[in-house]
Amino acid sequence: MIDCGEGAQMQLRKSKLKFTRLNHIFISHLHGDHCFGLMGLISTFGMLGRTATLYIHCHAELEHLLVPQLDFFCKGMSYKVVFQTFDPSKAEIIYDDRSLTIETIPLRHRIPTCGFLFSEKQTPAHIRRDMIDFYEIPLYEINRIKNGADYTLPDGKIVPNSKLTIPSAPPRRYAYCSDTIYLPRIISQIHGVDLLFHEATFTQSEQARAKETFHTTAAQAGEIARAAEVKQLLIGHFSARYENESILLQEASNIFPNTLLARETLKISIESVKP
Amino acid sequence: MIDCGEGAQMQLRKSKLKFTRLNHIFISHLHGDHCFGLMGLISTFGMLGRTATLYIHCHAELEHLLVPQLDFFCKGMSYKVVFQTFDPSKAEIIYDDRSLTIETIPLRHRIPTCGFLFSEKQTPAHIRRDMIDFYEIPLYEINRIKNGADYTLPDGKIVPNSKLTIPSAPPRRYAYCSDTIYLPRIISQIHGVDLLFHEATFTQSEQARAKETFHTTAAQAGEIARAAEVKQLLIGHFSARYENESILLQEASNIFPNTLLARETLKISIESVKP
Repeated sequence: MIDCGEGAQMQLRKSKLKFTRLNHIFISHLHGDHCFGLMGLISTFGMLGRTATLYIHCHAELEHLLVPQLDFFCKGMSYKVVFQTFDPSKAEIIYDDRSLTIETIPLRHRIPTCGFLFSEKQTPAHIRRDMIDFYEIPLYEINRIKNGADYTLPDGKIVPNSKLTIPSAPPRRYAYCSDTIYLPRIISQIHGVDLLFHEATFTQSEQARAKETFHTTAAQAGEIARAAEVKQLLIGHFSARYENESILLQEASNIFPNTLLARETLKISIESVKP
Repeated sequence: MIDCGEGAQMQLRKSKLKFTRLNHIFISHLHGDHCFGLMGLISTFGMLGRTATLYIHCHAELEHLLVPQLDFFCKGMSYKVVFQTFDPSKAEIIYDDRSLTIETIPLRHRIPTCGFLFSEKQTPAHIRRDMIDFYEIPLYEINRIKNGADYTLPDGKIVPNSKLTIPSAPPRRYAYCSDTIYLPRIISQIHGVDLLFHEATFTQSEQARAKETFHTTAAQAGEIARAAEVKQLLIGHFSARYENESILLQEASNIFPNTLLARETLKISIESVKP
């Protein structure tokens, strides 16, 4: 989960996602609309008898603010909450497992803020069963071939890896950038991601207000998406002044056509595009 | 406002009540479902440019927990938040103005908890204009008559106050009792109130569970209402296990017929019953 505003536990319930699947929460910055839902979520998990550790990845200040509350409200809970703090001012890998890395994207807002870049790792190629049988390749060679090795036949002839495997799907990448002023320096870091969530608080007509409050306009979000050559842009974090948010969608789409409007409980599947 | 669980600001918005009319919040006890909405509400008021002081009436621990959060999240806010702490273990008047007193009702829950009794003050009687004219009573006598004095005519004859006034509506009283184990000792304090909100977490078939968790059954809430001779009972704080809460209503109504089921954004007008 990225960020956890007030009511996040209600939205999570509404979304029908399994609570037990949530093990890591990443907090972009310490404004209430991005973290006031943590205490409720943590308490509810405790009342449901959760046992798996919950990791909160956040700025050090949040740990200092939450620990006294946890000590008071969540005494004797059935599971542990572990804080993994990071410095939001520099890009660094803050999470790494066998299938995924997560890296911070330093942003510029009124207070220290960062986005997050989720990068899947490349999985090994798929073996072509028919070719393995054809060349009578022994089982103990399969892992090497999966990882890219060619195969040498008993007569010394080399079968290139490309004849023995089908490439696996390319790894997917997702970047989340909110809240931030228009910040072209992020373009290189998020270049080519499959999905970019970018805040679009205002329309371009409110450009001055956007700058003043360290937010981005929908047009600027479109510019970032276009320059970064992302596959899809999802805009969100709209100012409450826009009753009809289609004006924001229109504005971003004019610059970057493949744009979607975020809405509550929206689910997007990121398809891995076969090469 | 009594208690302020997560999402209270959203419910307040939904209820269309004016935010500026809310100046006092009373917290019954420090479980998350009764106070996790405070930070969000306080922050939102700040962003809306509120200027009037907001008073939080609560146990001393809540002030200790909230002040560091306010210092961090609500720096430079346009209004003040003032904590007025009380000891929930004894009945005491914690608020008093020209029209109202508010008194704590010590309850028994897993942690220190109290309810609140809101008592309107008696307003002066209404003057009978026709009788004032008939007896040619001078203007400067009016206030004394409003407050109960008889009037002595120039010939020494006394006109009793009851001929000159119509009694004002009797003051209304509202008691809020949640969360608590079945606690008959509150009956005398809440006797005859116009409206009693009482928790009814379980049905009577879960009486053992209710006792164990320091909650009340719907039947027990009905018993309290009947014994206290209240005018109307509103039950709430239902366990999530009851998909259809009418079973709780049925159970309480069997004992105390004038019972209502609480639901989100429900509004109840308490009519002052003319004597």
